[in-house]
Amino acid sequence: MLKVKVYADRMSQPSRAVLIFCKVNGIEFDEIKVEISKRQQLSPEFAAINPFKKLPAIVDGRFKLFESHAILIYLASAFPGIADHWYPADLSRRARIHSVLDWHHLNLRHGAAPFVLHSVLAPVLGLPLNPKAAAEAEKILISSLLKLENIWLKGNGRYLLGNLQPSIADLSLVCEIMQLELLDEKDRERILGPHKKVQEWIESTRNATRPHFDEVHKVLYKVKEIIQAKQSNQVDGVMQSKTKSPLPSKM
Amino acid sequence: MLKVKVYADRMSQPSRAVLIFCKVNGIEFDEIKVEISKRQQLSPEFAAINPFKKLPAIVDGRFKLFESHAILIYLASAFPGIADHWYPADLSRRARIHSVLDWHHLNLRHGAAPFVLHSVLAPVLGLPLNPKAAAEAEKILISSLLKLENIWLKGNGRYLLGNLQPSIADLSLVCEIMQLELLDEKDRERILGPHKKVQEWIESTRNATRPHFDEVHKVLYKVKEIIQAKQSNQVDGVMQSKTKSPLPSKM
Repeated sequence: MLKVKVYADRMSQPSRAVLIFCKVNGIEFDEIKVEISKRQQLSPEFAAINPFKKLPAIVDGRFKLFESHAILIYLASAFPGIADHWYPADLSRRARIHSVLDWHHLNLRHGAAPFVLHSVLAPVLGLPLNPKAAAEAEKILISSLLKLENIWLKGNGRYLLGNLQPSIADLSLVCEIMQLELLDEKDRERILGPHKKVQEWIESTRNATRPHFDEVHKVLYKVKEIIQAKQSNQVDGVMQSKTKSPLPSKM
Repeated sequence: MLKVKVYADRMSQPSRAVLIFCKVNGIEFDEIKVEISKRQQLSPEFAAINPFKKLPAIVDGRFKLFESHAILIYLASAFPGIADHWYPADLSRRARIHSVLDWHHLNLRHGAAPFVLHSVLAPVLGLPLNPKAAAEAEKILISSLLKLENIWLKGNGRYLLGNLQPSIADLSLVCEIMQLELLDEKDRERILGPHKKVQEWIESTRNATRPHFDEVHKVLYKVKEIIQAKQSNQVDGVMQSKTKSPLPSKM
């Protein structure tokens, strides 16, 4: 049987969610690296797989699919032996997972991704920081974290919707939040510190998907080193970066 | 059997999609009006149904659900006799519909809704127009319409993904675009005019869901009259509205 191909960049949070899901569930796949920092997602070869030129995407036989939530649902449905809690067969439980995933787009994702880009990641991609855009995104991020803490994580379960085991929604949203690891400690503490349930939930999701969770997220800590080196160079008044491998291009 | 309750405001485009879906498919339901212009969605009674205080929401027995895409999927799955084309059982066809619905959030919806609010609807809700926010939203709207025309409507079918019959994605996205009816003719033509496939697809979706499509959209034309009356009052230098029922409050 042909393995499913996963086109991914581990710097992309939805790519990480799909990779971790495959690894945790023993889905045999080939990881095909498409480097956003080299603009590889804009190539004609990749556009033939996803005309929107975004990551992740999969190819299963002749079937091409993009949008990470759609991919997670497809993988959970099409491959045998995936535990029911990831994407329950029960229609009501499944519907509630869809509602979290729908909410994600214009809330948590809409805050976290532009906030991290405009507040710390941009220089690594050769772009200027944008404090105004960062401030606007931070408002959406903070509001989303409050809703996670007080609404989606209400109840006694360790996971979203009061569940006792993780679903594809937990994985998708936790991977989104993990990009906050790129912030310096002070900013990360300011933003995540007040949200104890969110922090516990991140740990629960990490624990439920060990060791793959940490392995797939390793790249974040490497990029964080590059960011910190750039920042300390700037503090020293040395504008020319001393880091040996800054990512060269636009996201 | 208890009817499903649909909490909706017909001025909300995802509310319209859910109402039309129920009517077209003979789902017995009670429409419970929650008027956004009167801020009724912020009431404690409604917050007990949807803690995010947004429309639409449904209650089916003891099961509460919000987010319109999740609702459409649930209704198509839980009620008997819904034609397969709305939400196909085949996993690949279903996955592609999920990918359109995922795309919708941060593209078409993210452009159309703020564009209409900030360029024409705001005064009806007692808010000022915001040309800067409208201009930013217009860029996202135009880009989304281009992608609809050139990517999602590629192929010979009348519907998204080259399908021969409509899915819940067609209904959801067409209802989003229909709010452009609130614009004056010149602006609507400027925005929709270049997209012939999009226009044909709107007509196909309207035809496939007659007479419910037109009935549920009637409210738009009433509000358009209010907008035009307000605009012509302003042109005449008469700032006090002569319309008999301006919507009084904030969205």
